[in-house]
Amino acid sequence: MEANIRTELHGDELRQAKTSVGLAAELRASIARGDWIQGEKLPSVRRMSEKTGLHRLTVFKAYGMLKEDGWVESREKSGYYVIMPRPNEERIASRRETIDAHRHDPDPDAPANLAAVEDEALSPLPALLGELHSVDCAYQFSQALIDPLLLPNTYLAEQAKQVFDRYPRVLGTYAPLRGDEELLEALRRYLSEACGVDIAESEVLVTGGAQEAIHLACEALVRPGDAVLIEQPSYSVAIEMFRHRNARLLPVGIRPDGYRMDEVEALMRRYRPVLFYMNPTFHNPTGWCVPPEQRKQLADLAETYGCILVEDDAFRDIYFGSPPPAPVYGYDTSGHTIYVRSFSKYVFPGLRIGCLAAPPPLMRRLLAAKARSGGGTPLLNQKVFAHHFQSERSRSHLHKLRIALQLRKEAMETALAGSGWRWHSPSGGLNLWIELPEGLHPERLLADSLGGRHTDTVAFVPGSFFDPDGQADRHIRLSYSLLNERQIAEGTARLRAYAERQTKPPGRSAF
Amino acid sequence: MEANIRTELHGDELRQAKTSVGLAAELRASIARGDWIQGEKLPSVRRMSEKTGLHRLTVFKAYGMLKEDGWVESREKSGYYVIMPRPNEERIASRRETIDAHRHDPDPDAPANLAAVEDEALSPLPALLGELHSVDCAYQFSQALIDPLLLPNTYLAEQAKQVFDRYPRVLGTYAPLRGDEELLEALRRYLSEACGVDIAESEVLVTGGAQEAIHLACEALVRPGDAVLIEQPSYSVAIEMFRHRNARLLPVGIRPDGYRMDEVEALMRRYRPVLFYMNPTFHNPTGWCVPPEQRKQLADLAETYGCILVEDDAFRDIYFGSPPPAPVYGYDTSGHTIYVRSFSKYVFPGLRIGCLAAPPPLMRRLLAAKARSGGGTPLLNQKVFAHHFQSERSRSHLHKLRIALQLRKEAMETALAGSGWRWHSPSGGLNLWIELPEGLHPERLLADSLGGRHTDTVAFVPGSFFDPDGQADRHIRLSYSLLNERQIAEGTARLRAYAERQTKPPGRSAF
Repeated sequence: MEANIRTELHGDELRQAKTSVGLAAELRASIARGDWIQGEKLPSVRRMSEKTGLHRLTVFKAYGMLKEDGWVESREKSGYYVIMPRPNEERIASRRETIDAHRHDPDPDAPANLAAVEDEALSPLPALLGELHSVDCAYQFSQALIDPLLLPNTYLAEQAKQVFDRYPRVLGTYAPLRGDEELLEALRRYLSEACGVDIAESEVLVTGGAQEAIHLACEALVRPGDAVLIEQPSYSVAIEMFRHRNARLLPVGIRPDGYRMDEVEALMRRYRPVLFYMNPTFHNPTGWCVPPEQRKQLADLAETYGCILVEDDAFRDIYFGSPPPAPVYGYDTSGHTIYVRSFSKYVFPGLRIGCLAAPPPLMRRLLAAKARSGGGTPLLNQKVFAHHFQSERSRSHLHKLRIALQLRKEAMETALAGSGWRWHSPSGGLNLWIELPEGLHPERLLADSLGGRHTDTVAFVPGSFFDPDGQADRHIRLSYSLLNERQIAEGTARLRAYAERQTKPPGRSAF
Repeated sequence: MEANIRTELHGDELRQAKTSVGLAAELRASIARGDWIQGEKLPSVRRMSEKTGLHRLTVFKAYGMLKEDGWVESREKSGYYVIMPRPNEERIASRRETIDAHRHDPDPDAPANLAAVEDEALSPLPALLGELHSVDCAYQFSQALIDPLLLPNTYLAEQAKQVFDRYPRVLGTYAPLRGDEELLEALRRYLSEACGVDIAESEVLVTGGAQEAIHLACEALVRPGDAVLIEQPSYSVAIEMFRHRNARLLPVGIRPDGYRMDEVEALMRRYRPVLFYMNPTFHNPTGWCVPPEQRKQLADLAETYGCILVEDDAFRDIYFGSPPPAPVYGYDTSGHTIYVRSFSKYVFPGLRIGCLAAPPPLMRRLLAAKARSGGGTPLLNQKVFAHHFQSERSRSHLHKLRIALQLRKEAMETALAGSGWRWHSPSGGLNLWIELPEGLHPERLLADSLGGRHTDTVAFVPGSFFDPDGQADRHIRLSYSLLNERQIAEGTARLRAYAERQTKPPGRSAF
């Protein structure tokens, strides 16, 4: 069968793809189904562009992603050919290992640029994010991590040592799959007292951080081709998890006042997504908070359309002013929500303790996924965490941390005043989500700010890293959690200087 | 399209299925491809049995598995209908929560029994294994765990406390994705000195135990429908991981003298498996060891057929007499092996530290899987492990442990002498793999031995739990690692008594 005929056959599906990520996902599913087979040539970029109505650049990017993932290979001056999804040296695509931070969208009408995009073998974004975080730079605004100097390290170490005396065999014992009983009970009590969420102890599962919890939800619920609602922007690691499962990602915009609920309902009605991955409280990367009335509505919609809400509530503890509204989980009376918490982030990043809560039918599937992927969370970590979590000191630590982070946020906002950059000041979380003015490109600004003298280098995350469609974006995320106020003021000033040089007419700067 | 016509279309594929597990996997793949769609009725058991040449009971079991997994639903007196792979309460199949240890193959010609099998909604085996391990019983031979009393708990706890003084911020720091540098270097040195495997430090990845390492290999390499070689019998958790990925499992027999290499080569040539999951050194559950000449051949075959060897080497340290042969990884010059080690099992089960070693092209994929599924292994655990691992005490501990386990093995063998039960005495590992004489059914024996007075109860694992085909087996696994010699002698005597009662003519016993 000719590739062109296949394109006719599958045109309808492919036409639904709106973006390069979407098209790549459709093509992966097509190849997995056997619509295209080993050695077969994919339609030319021009032909696919005509068939799908997508821009040629978008098609190029999609083909580049398939090549990166090892689904197709490109033969010089010939095109893209399907290769069997079988691992061997030739197929194991080598991921790009350096940040090509200078990359930006070329002129779509210039064929030379298109070829350049093809050669670049565009990487999935999170690979780049990992790289970005590991760049050695003077002012690190890219990592939403707590400054280790804000943690009472010595106190915590002494407290942790006590655990060995209280539980002399803690090192020699496997933890139960669902978690240590003492910790499970402490978490249940906390969820009831601090979040107003009353559940049975059997509805809690201890995980190795929030990321493992999200991954378990993905493994337990998502099958290839399933529709998944996701905020736009969203947590890049979650985007990558769902993409890797070949889910069909349906973006839902988030704004300072929450979601457009009619949009959420329309997507649920039309696509019947298996889940909605959301982060409604001090959302990453924006810091915004979904209001209580929408939380109630979300629980109702989830029940109506049988859509599981995966509520990532990693930032609840970091609020400035009054505590955030109750979790969506608290409004759910029909058992459609998986509630994900990170705990160790603000106190014990080296421990990696998180948890999820879910009703029994979902819990059974999540436990099966946990049993398959690695078993119980290490007991030592659970005991050290439980020991601290139940102490008075944990509350006073969080109280101080909130104040320190609020001061840092304000320092960053002060340093940005008068820049013409725009943001909605968040009432919690670790980041500012900033819209750059016209003429400033996030990726180009990043390239410049990482490319200067080392003592002047500044790292931040371009908005495209958080976009489920992988589209360019005018936003950047600046994290104020890792550096102190002085460093924040200095680094922000450096960043503004890079931006100013970029908006000057060419020839006027040394860049 | 009629279901019957679909059966014709897909008959060839389905005919290749030899077992209920195989048929269920084929049907899952068919439904995923859209060969059967939402609401469509699967062929009747009789019809499918005729088409595939499989026994009706086998088809029943396969349909039961699909129902359990939520791919089909059964409507009373009507048949099995495909349901969309979409999670909601109706679909989330409730896993059986008690061991139906009395289950055994009913008379295949009796329709009443077939119906009973259908109603049972057979569980995947590992769910039962987890249940089995958690049964409270007097003599626990089912868990291949080290007796906590054999670990120098107090010493280890004191040693672990020193870590907080050496690294005061260990609790406040995320570990790098690949692992703590100090530990990576220690592991590299160990692999070189103790295993004769020379690799770059960048070819090592720290994991949360061997199980996570196997899961990463599965995630990185296996796609639905891929062929995977696996030993028969094999580690039940690994079986479940590959099954869950909808891999096509191809069993390779293991015997006291290793594999039948012609069989291995024939399977590689014919099915081009993506990987061979193997445990050639003191293999679980049998304890057998693949000889050096086969190790060399395996490396060659892997290169010839582009098959990745996933070498699970969890039991290398527990040998009686001389150390085992070098790992297959040491013979591999073409980069086709992923080497998996468990470390914390014999000293720090509460820490969960393992590692894998792999050449760079595979390592890139494994790292991507690790980044998606949960990120770096907690730093505290790595530092505590590294501190012990590099100490002289770790060597003397292992030396003592080997002697203690050898004595326990001998105690169990002494207690079994004269029983008529047969086994090849292993030269390492934690288990005896025993063939019961004719007339003894492992599952029925387990039911009896768990059903008596509590002070007499004995737990062990029936051989079927380790069979990639899920078939009945005459073997049982008895672990000698958890109980002391006296308990082993007593528990084995109890087990022999249950067996003797079972082989007496009916009516003579109270059972």
